[in-house]
Amino acid sequence: MSNTYAVIMAGGVGSRFWPKSRERSPKQFLEIVGSGTMIQNTVTRIQSIVPAMNTFVVTNKLQEELTYKQLPFIPKENILIEPVGRNTAPCIGLAASLIHKIDPKAIMIVLPADHVIRNVDEFLRVLDQAVKVAEISDALITIGIKPSRPETGYGYIQFDEEPQTSNPYKNEGVLRVKTFAEKPNLETAERFLQSGDFLWNSGMFVWKAQSILKEIEVHMPDLHVQLKTLNQKPGTAEFRGALEQAYGIIRSISIDYGVMEKAGNVFVAKGDFGWSDVGSWDEVVRLASTDNDHNSIKGVVIAKDATGNYIDAGDKIVAVVGVEDLIIVTTADAVLVCRKGQSQNVKEIVDYMRRKQMNDEL
Amino acid sequence: MSNTYAVIMAGGVGSRFWPKSRERSPKQFLEIVGSGTMIQNTVTRIQSIVPAMNTFVVTNKLQEELTYKQLPFIPKENILIEPVGRNTAPCIGLAASLIHKIDPKAIMIVLPADHVIRNVDEFLRVLDQAVKVAEISDALITIGIKPSRPETGYGYIQFDEEPQTSNPYKNEGVLRVKTFAEKPNLETAERFLQSGDFLWNSGMFVWKAQSILKEIEVHMPDLHVQLKTLNQKPGTAEFRGALEQAYGIIRSISIDYGVMEKAGNVFVAKGDFGWSDVGSWDEVVRLASTDNDHNSIKGVVIAKDATGNYIDAGDKIVAVVGVEDLIIVTTADAVLVCRKGQSQNVKEIVDYMRRKQMNDEL
Repeated sequence: MSNTYAVIMAGGVGSRFWPKSRERSPKQFLEIVGSGTMIQNTVTRIQSIVPAMNTFVVTNKLQEELTYKQLPFIPKENILIEPVGRNTAPCIGLAASLIHKIDPKAIMIVLPADHVIRNVDEFLRVLDQAVKVAEISDALITIGIKPSRPETGYGYIQFDEEPQTSNPYKNEGVLRVKTFAEKPNLETAERFLQSGDFLWNSGMFVWKAQSILKEIEVHMPDLHVQLKTLNQKPGTAEFRGALEQAYGIIRSISIDYGVMEKAGNVFVAKGDFGWSDVGSWDEVVRLASTDNDHNSIKGVVIAKDATGNYIDAGDKIVAVVGVEDLIIVTTADAVLVCRKGQSQNVKEIVDYMRRKQMNDEL
Repeated sequence: MSNTYAVIMAGGVGSRFWPKSRERSPKQFLEIVGSGTMIQNTVTRIQSIVPAMNTFVVTNKLQEELTYKQLPFIPKENILIEPVGRNTAPCIGLAASLIHKIDPKAIMIVLPADHVIRNVDEFLRVLDQAVKVAEISDALITIGIKPSRPETGYGYIQFDEEPQTSNPYKNEGVLRVKTFAEKPNLETAERFLQSGDFLWNSGMFVWKAQSILKEIEVHMPDLHVQLKTLNQKPGTAEFRGALEQAYGIIRSISIDYGVMEKAGNVFVAKGDFGWSDVGSWDEVVRLASTDNDHNSIKGVVIAKDATGNYIDAGDKIVAVVGVEDLIIVTTADAVLVCRKGQSQNVKEIVDYMRRKQMNDEL
């Protein structure tokens, strides 16, 4: 599979995991679930199908050093530094144009750096199937996740099984996409779940570099023009300068909105492999294992009459007395105490600190 | 009032204020309520009736340096260092014997270092009244507090108003003690409260040094013998050596049990001046002022949908989301999250750490 490349999107600046995630160390660089940081796990998860030298990471200046440090086995020239985050379309376009120059036949697997996947074998099977379709076609294949609950935090993909004739790849387990749906309200999410033909949009994609570049040329000509200006040798000061200039012009837009919702040859590979985008502390709690008191404990914790709590003590000692269903996260300089089920509000805490310019704490 | 001396008992090693209180910095050396540490407030509270040079502090080796540092205005020779804590009787006996040598007519006011008093004027009025009785008699006068609730955490003093003839000091607001009662259960405490003739035992005393020494000689002859061996100049190595030897023999016993419950000339001055021995975090919460959301906040705290919490952020930033009625206390290396009303269990947390020899955290 020497034609297969991976593009790990690691530019997120997530504020939902404060106080663990900070501007300089967002979620993908943290050990939030299990061992290993999320970006390390994302890279090693696919190492059996994509060698390190074919693995590219797109991140930004703030996280550049952390990326080198956490992924020492990835060639330094494969770490692409965006001057500024411009959502997924420019990120994917940049990686595609560079990979296409290296290998005009390249197949790209695009993966966010901050997802958890429990059944890796099944995940790799689905990827392999998508790669096989990409090899024989110009299809843009997104990975859709079989929904297990009426989640309102994800976008959805509706697939179309009829008419059979419109999907030449049906035998490969890849279905034609009927429509993309934004994050729904609960009522709509419940309808999606019942309908049986909606999948969660995981933000993972498989295609030929050539295919996505062609579609960017059609649907995002402005971006295509800017990508064309990047003819310098990657890693050089000239390249960085040109990149800075291009990103000054490139608009911030997602690949879903910029391309996927507009292109005709869009398919979805259906996956069911214990996926989570780990979007909040509550999702971490859901993924964590618990002790006899239903507490999930990391670090030195002394609990008395305490049940159902998630406690990450960091390098401190945490004592809890008579409390239940709390999320307690401690770092060197900060403590979060959040009622379970309310961790979506952690973002507001960070927004507040931004407004108050509490820069040390961000 | 140059005959009036104060003895501040500061040997406590309280574990109920973990994580703020540690073995080396127990409650009396902390700013727990309002500004100033409790021992500083105890000394300054009486400065209008007892000059610094007449103020003695009894503490132990672990807290010696902290005592010098927090009370720089007290002559160093007035800080008495017990080699080991032996409860209040030896502490009071030691101070009484030294003060009696300085001034045979000395009146001693004995005060624990870790109490909160809100109405200082009234407190001083009660002390003054007790001092006046001590001046004209051999009475042992304890300060009793008018109870405001059926507290089970305090000992009680029952006073006796009849027969009037047995109390020559009645006109001074000082009543004869009928009996001392240990910490009661709730039912008994409620009965005490209803009866109207029970007061909280505050552990504060007023007497002539001579009077208490005489009673120690009668009721605690062993202690009296050991005190007699301390003839060296205080502050010298010889004195410290003799003290070490004496404390090796002296038994641990409270002044209540050793003397007050046995002596005949025991009186109580009734006080009602917003007193608290601040025995737990819940008591601190009770004494703290609150904001519009009924939260009591010290330090940098960001609260979202949070009410009725007591939060001391220390040098950290604490964010709370959707929580109520919690006590959250943060120090350099530890965090306590305790349900309000359950802070009596904090002691068990510390006991657990002792058993596990988590010495860094004690």
